[in-house]
Amino acid sequence: MKQPACLIGGFPYNAAMFMKRHGPPGASPATLSPHLVDGKIRKPAIQVIEYDKDSIEERDVTDIAELAGHLDNRKVTWINIDGLGDVEALTLLGEKFNIHPLALEDVLNTGQRPKVENSADYVFIVAQMVYQDKRRTICGEQVSFFLGKNFLITVQEEGDYDVFEPVRERVRAGRGTIRKAKADYLAYALLDSIIDHYYPVLEAIGNVIEDLEDDLLDKPSREMIHTLHEHKRSLSQIRRFVWPLRDVVNALLHDPSGLIASNTKIYLRDCYDHTVQLMDLVESYRELTSGLMELYHSSVGLRTNEVMRVLTVITSIFIPLTFIVGVYGMNFAPADTSGRALPLNMPELYQPHGYIWLMAFMAATAIVQLIIFKKMKWL
Amino acid sequence: MKQPACLIGGFPYNAAMFMKRHGPPGASPATLSPHLVDGKIRKPAIQVIEYDKDSIEERDVTDIAELAGHLDNRKVTWINIDGLGDVEALTLLGEKFNIHPLALEDVLNTGQRPKVENSADYVFIVAQMVYQDKRRTICGEQVSFFLGKNFLITVQEEGDYDVFEPVRERVRAGRGTIRKAKADYLAYALLDSIIDHYYPVLEAIGNVIEDLEDDLLDKPSREMIHTLHEHKRSLSQIRRFVWPLRDVVNALLHDPSGLIASNTKIYLRDCYDHTVQLMDLVESYRELTSGLMELYHSSVGLRTNEVMRVLTVITSIFIPLTFIVGVYGMNFAPADTSGRALPLNMPELYQPHGYIWLMAFMAATAIVQLIIFKKMKWL
Amino acid sequence: MKQPACLIGGFPYNAAMFMKRHGPPGASPATLSPHLVDGKIRKPAIQVIEYDKDSIEERDVTDIAELAGHLDNRKVTWINIDGLGDVEALTLLGEKFNIHPLALEDVLNTGQRPKVENSADYVFIVAQMVYQDKRRTICGEQVSFFLGKNFLITVQEEGDYDVFEPVRERVRAGRGTIRKAKADYLAYALLDSIIDHYYPVLEAIGNVIEDLEDDLLDKPSREMIHTLHEHKRSLSQIRRFVWPLRDVVNALLHDPSGLIASNTKIYLRDCYDHTVQLMDLVESYRELTSGLMELYHSSVGLRTNEVMRVLTVITSIFIPLTFIVGVYGMNFAPADTSGRALPLNMPELYQPHGYIWLMAFMAATAIVQLIIFKKMKWL
Amino acid sequence: MKQPACLIGGFPYNAAMFMKRHGPPGASPATLSPHLVDGKIRKPAIQVIEYDKDSIEERDVTDIAELAGHLDNRKVTWINIDGLGDVEALTLLGEKFNIHPLALEDVLNTGQRPKVENSADYVFIVAQMVYQDKRRTICGEQVSFFLGKNFLITVQEEGDYDVFEPVRERVRAGRGTIRKAKADYLAYALLDSIIDHYYPVLEAIGNVIEDLEDDLLDKPSREMIHTLHEHKRSLSQIRRFVWPLRDVVNALLHDPSGLIASNTKIYLRDCYDHTVQLMDLVESYRELTSGLMELYHSSVGLRTNEVMRVLTVITSIFIPLTFIVGVYGMNFAPADTSGRALPLNMPELYQPHGYIWLMAFMAATAIVQLIIFKKMKWL
Amino acid sequence: MKQPACLIGGFPYNAAMFMKRHGPPGASPATLSPHLVDGKIRKPAIQVIEYDKDSIEERDVTDIAELAGHLDNRKVTWINIDGLGDVEALTLLGEKFNIHPLALEDVLNTGQRPKVENSADYVFIVAQMVYQDKRRTICGEQVSFFLGKNFLITVQEEGDYDVFEPVRERVRAGRGTIRKAKADYLAYALLDSIIDHYYPVLEAIGNVIEDLEDDLLDKPSREMIHTLHEHKRSLSQIRRFVWPLRDVVNALLHDPSGLIASNTKIYLRDCYDHTVQLMDLVESYRELTSGLMELYHSSVGLRTNEVMRVLTVITSIFIPLTFIVGVYGMNFAPADTSGRALPLNMPELYQPHGYIWLMAFMAATAIVQLIIFKKMKWL
Repeated sequence: MKQPACLIGGFPYNAAMFMKRHGPPGASPATLSPHLVDGKIRKPAIQVIEYDKDSIEERDVTDIAELAGHLDNRKVTWINIDGLGDVEALTLLGEKFNIHPLALEDVLNTGQRPKVENSADYVFIVAQMVYQDKRRTICGEQVSFFLGKNFLITVQEEGDYDVFEPVRERVRAGRGTIRKAKADYLAYALLDSIIDHYYPVLEAIGNVIEDLEDDLLDKPSREMIHTLHEHKRSLSQIRRFVWPLRDVVNALLHDPSGLIASNTKIYLRDCYDHTVQLMDLVESYRELTSGLMELYHSSVGLRTNEVMRVLTVITSIFIPLTFIVGVYGMNFAPADTSGRALPLNMPELYQPHGYIWLMAFMAATAIVQLIIFKKMKWL
Repeated sequence: MKQPACLIGGFPYNAAMFMKRHGPPGASPATLSPHLVDGKIRKPAIQVIEYDKDSIEERDVTDIAELAGHLDNRKVTWINIDGLGDVEALTLLGEKFNIHPLALEDVLNTGQRPKVENSADYVFIVAQMVYQDKRRTICGEQVSFFLGKNFLITVQEEGDYDVFEPVRERVRAGRGTIRKAKADYLAYALLDSIIDHYYPVLEAIGNVIEDLEDDLLDKPSREMIHTLHEHKRSLSQIRRFVWPLRDVVNALLHDPSGLIASNTKIYLRDCYDHTVQLMDLVESYRELTSGLMELYHSSVGLRTNEVMRVLTVITSIFIPLTFIVGVYGMNFAPADTSGRALPLNMPELYQPHGYIWLMAFMAATAIVQLIIFKKMKWL
Repeated sequence: MKQPACLIGGFPYNAAMFMKRHGPPGASPATLSPHLVDGKIRKPAIQVIEYDKDSIEERDVTDIAELAGHLDNRKVTWINIDGLGDVEALTLLGEKFNIHPLALEDVLNTGQRPKVENSADYVFIVAQMVYQDKRRTICGEQVSFFLGKNFLITVQEEGDYDVFEPVRERVRAGRGTIRKAKADYLAYALLDSIIDHYYPVLEAIGNVIEDLEDDLLDKPSREMIHTLHEHKRSLSQIRRFVWPLRDVVNALLHDPSGLIASNTKIYLRDCYDHTVQLMDLVESYRELTSGLMELYHSSVGLRTNEVMRVLTVITSIFIPLTFIVGVYGMNFAPADTSGRALPLNMPELYQPHGYIWLMAFMAATAIVQLIIFKKMKWL
Repeated sequence: MKQPACLIGGFPYNAAMFMKRHGPPGASPATLSPHLVDGKIRKPAIQVIEYDKDSIEERDVTDIAELAGHLDNRKVTWINIDGLGDVEALTLLGEKFNIHPLALEDVLNTGQRPKVENSADYVFIVAQMVYQDKRRTICGEQVSFFLGKNFLITVQEEGDYDVFEPVRERVRAGRGTIRKAKADYLAYALLDSIIDHYYPVLEAIGNVIEDLEDDLLDKPSREMIHTLHEHKRSLSQIRRFVWPLRDVVNALLHDPSGLIASNTKIYLRDCYDHTVQLMDLVESYRELTSGLMELYHSSVGLRTNEVMRVLTVITSIFIPLTFIVGVYGMNFAPADTSGRALPLNMPELYQPHGYIWLMAFMAATAIVQLIIFKKMKWL
Repeated sequence: MKQPACLIGGFPYNAAMFMKRHGPPGASPATLSPHLVDGKIRKPAIQVIEYDKDSIEERDVTDIAELAGHLDNRKVTWINIDGLGDVEALTLLGEKFNIHPLALEDVLNTGQRPKVENSADYVFIVAQMVYQDKRRTICGEQVSFFLGKNFLITVQEEGDYDVFEPVRERVRAGRGTIRKAKADYLAYALLDSIIDHYYPVLEAIGNVIEDLEDDLLDKPSREMIHTLHEHKRSLSQIRRFVWPLRDVVNALLHDPSGLIASNTKIYLRDCYDHTVQLMDLVESYRELTSGLMELYHSSVGLRTNEVMRVLTVITSIFIPLTFIVGVYGMNFAPADTSGRALPLNMPELYQPHGYIWLMAFMAATAIVQLIIFKKMKWL
């Protein structure tokens, strides 16, 4: 089973997502190499849905070559490829649909920045999807679109979670405008689904952060800081995905190719608003994490200060007193070795009320100190 | 009773305001779902005011369908809907006024960024209002405007506070230009009222912050930092509302639809100045909170330093003295167990002035140390 | 006597300057309300100067109505109004000179951002002046200009300090180009005077900051941090005044109204350079205050570290020694209660050179520790 | 052997790279001075490759003069010069290919910002290459390109690592488009190779940083901070190389000279995406290092706090107890020197259960303190 | 002897450089006042060089009036004025060359931002030069250029260091293009010389900073922080000089006046690259100083932590032991004053192996603590 790049949870770090796959330096451009899952090449799952207003046909295809004669100009053909293991199949697909090898390279080298590229025959879109897997780890996955006049090819990394399923259901059900519209609306619907999937992930991060906020002032711990740091990184990563995604939607809004109908653009504008809202949300959480970091520092600083004050007060009171009692613990003898009296050697010890006077003096000292500390607001 | 999103005061946090409502990922766009108040759908209150220079008519409507035939071209019709509980009513309204379903979706999914959208028949404006409720909690509420040629539809969340009342009074009283002007001036007046409501909220935040300033240097506490943090968050949130609000006013100023008269634009320019001033104010307070945070850190750092100095001075003076008196508390015997004299064992104890010399030596040590600490500016 | 908003020195804070006066939310726009000084309305002082190359006439006017017929097209008429207490006078003035009520509202609602507004008949300029009063408090005051073809109306808050006096002197003396030029040159001369007044204020702030710099490393105190913080705020405020002032001058430089002669624009360009220079100066000081804050933190951190080192060294040396002498202060008896010898109970006490050996051992311990601390660079 | 400027690893610092070579102030422009390696001038290695679709010819040239008549218009001529020691050779080259002296000066004064300059006969490109040498030190090297119609001159600093070798191999093998294309594609291929070489360097930095992350919370040390600081500097430096490199590629993409074929521009766009991705990666790591720095501060702050708490708890418990036992270690005598009883002098010492009561009292004191500390969450 | 404004080294601070000279607020514009050196007006040194390709003539002039008839159209006339003490001379110069009084004012009011101003007859350039004087203090000096068709007037502050000397030498020697070119090339050569002089200054700062880097981790001191702070300020100041200098060169590159030949612009582009490189260098060093500040904080924080750990370990081990030996130093009597045995009073003291058992117990306690501290990684 494939393990997609996870943002939180340790190993494949966020920065790594961007550089995950690149060929050896100086290699020929557009050199395609298959994705290995646990070191093995796996056949991708290919699904074809053809539909128009009235009919819909779904089938699974095992060989790209089968697709060849099937494109019906009056229908929308959606080819979804799940998995990046079969380079030959992709090359074949590229030849059939006249896709530039550099675009195919971008499909395989996952970790691309979201982008739009216009070509004579198609619009090439790369997006990054984010979702939480079953263990609530935040995972990312690259999705590539080739949007043509009456077809849409989508290529996903092979994941155990399929963000396209709700859209597929809508196509099947034939509700709304989706079946009446062209491939461009389908592309919009899928992009919108990808964007919508950012919300629950951000909500989850938001919940964790807000839980932290209460605990931070109460009892700051190393674990909290670590969690905060991890979530900050996740937010950075999501930010790095959403910023260019906004540009992608904007580029589609101003698409000059004519592949995107003006009616679809109204929906894309809505989509654009969502990406702006996502950015707002991400920035808001980032600001919040910074604020919490600061709160944490303040909290620790103040705690250290409090601890120090207690230490200082106790030490300041008892160290002098201990010295005083030490004085009267000295063994200066009342007489020298030959028995002659030494009346100046600690005569206090032989006073009738020496002990009581001393105790009173020490109590007074302590009380005066307490008053001073009180005045200095150290207590 | 509905409880709108509150900025300060804990529960529905500011970031949350933006994401409050969004459908399940992958759902069909423009899917409308009603706002629930305490889990129940509530009928919205619909009020219609029709007026021109000479006459004014106010009535409450329970059914949107009633509105149908009532639009009088020579008068301004202001339809105010209070509450988002009735999806069917909104759909009906949308059909009647030819409103795009995506706009209606934005009305229902509160927490939108303020924005302007132009359509053939109307200008759609979303704004975020901020006010303090009775318990002085800062609350936010989305207000949507549909400004047409001779009508204005406003949709508010159902709140116990109505920011439109002063404008309604002005319409009733017929003072100023409001009754002579068209729907665009009414929209301006309402927007202006929304913007004006930011001032007292900011003033309240400002007062709290300035009260904090005095206390921070005096006696910094964890509560202050928490308050500061909370207000910083509120300011962030307000900032996130005002920035796009400025863009909204600016977009209206350069509105190409012809719905906004050039005379109204003079007033909108004044409005624009107010949003710029608000931004200035927000940035000013944000800078101030950062400055206070820094002041706090400085204050705590200096306090810790002072506490440490006291601790160190007292310890440095008394620990050596305690050691010395400890020495003369040792029981080295003047004679061994068989009674032979051990003249090298602490002969000081048997000197006639041993005790006095020792006391003098210790006093001298302490005084020298005090002088050194004085020179090092630790006292 | 009026007390204008002061930047430093406590009470009416800088942010407050911007919000000082705004009507109740939702109020009709252009509602004018008089400035109260100590709760009373005071008549403004109105001064009229009419001059051309050859002649000059100065008079004080008590009633705006008097002004009516006096405008001489061949001369420059400068009407200076000192004080904002008389709303009716201003309204009359507005009617006479065809001034928009919103502009009058901006005149009365002091604390506006500096700005330029073009109108058919005049250019409306708002600027913020800064000066030090007799007690060296930094004060701010709004100055409004209405520049027409052959007149200039200036409205100041009623202050005990008049920045226009030097210009008035120049007009009287008839030196330079001022008497030969039109009202636009007069406006330039007054603006230039306002801008020039920022320099001594910044110089005063700069002197305080540089004095602080020397003291900060020497003996940081809470007062210094507070002063630094106060000046940082003043700089923020001044910055908020100068930035838009620069835009004001720039807007005048590119004024399309034709009211500003190209010859005057050469002088305005000089003025523009001054605002840029002011900004440089303000940014420079802001950077300096931040640097000082950092210096302060470093200084306190290092001081705490030094104090700690002294504490640790003294404690580390004397605490173990105190323990050792404590050991030989124990009263383990050489014989049990029945008088039987207990030879294992502290036999050291009965050695002939026990005391001397112990003292030597303790001295050695202390010396070794000193050497270790020296090596660790703690001393 | 030449030692190129190393980013990490101490001596020739990153800032130094930029200023490495500049003439004495006021010197005549375009004054060329040779690079010295260990104080000696070394002859550069010159290699010429001429190729077209069908043939390829490689030869080493010792004298630039030899090159003169060899330029074949139908073939691509790639002249690679390794080493900057021979000013005369460069001057000769400059004369032959009509290169401006200022461009030659930039070739020799390594440490230039990456840039593109258009000239009538050629496009002059400066790029900065980064690689890790055998000791895993990150090294930088300037590479200059002169791209003409059918020739490409590349000048490298004399390094023991040649980033061009993979491209040379591709040219020799004749795979892909490289042999079919013109000099512009060759220039692209070399630039691409330079850009590709940034990835493994960043990967290496990334690995070190991520290793640090685990250790930082566990046991922060001075070495870690130093490593972090070093890598931050390297990232700064790489950033300073990649930003303008992006502009270089962008400038080539919009090259007006006609030297770059539109087909090559497709590949350059891919190249451009890589530079953007590199920037993302660099920014990502920079953010990460800042985050780690903050984590480190938090970790140290918390550790200090914990240490302080332990110190305070132990001190607070034992110092008062030590005082108490000190009291009963005082030698107040039960009788004065003449033997008269002093019944008020420490009568506790003569109580039958005095010792036991005292021990119980001290145990109780300690237990109460432990409970208090537990409640204050100091334990 | 004049003492120019010094950046480092205390007295006339960098911010001061910008405000050094400005007239009293409200003064007439273009009021010229002479520079006083030690309170006295000094005559400036005026040097005239006239040259063309074939000839060169140098002479010193004492009176500006002498210059009047000397301008030869076929030659380049370079008038260099050293010192700002003679207002009349400058006024005369201004009249002769038709220079605007505001430009002359800028010449006298040193501390201007570098700028270019176009006039009908000349281009007016202000630049700020930086150099190190004999005591290695960094000094700044304003240089003003008036570039006309066949003349160049340069005005410097009167300094003991002349940055123009190398250029003068080149003119005399007649090497390179300088004698063949017009006044524009001379202006370029002088500007280039000014820009070149920034490099050694930055190099000097860089060396100091890099020396600091090694010491900071080793043994941070207050002096280092102060030096760092000083250099940060110098860098700020230099940055404030170089940024507008870049704009100056850029403005000259796009000069519309026709005074600058296209051939000279190639050299100016080189000049522009140098200013960009300078900016890179300055930013690089600024980043480095910030990094060092952070390093310093980390270092101090960690040191404090280490010191605390040692203190805590030693205290935790010895304070309890001291308490224990204190217990057995108590004088609870084995019998009451009447001689009756009190068997519960410290019977341990009368055990045969009491002392040894106690010593063993204390050793065990200490060892256990050491193990615990080892486990907590405090040792």
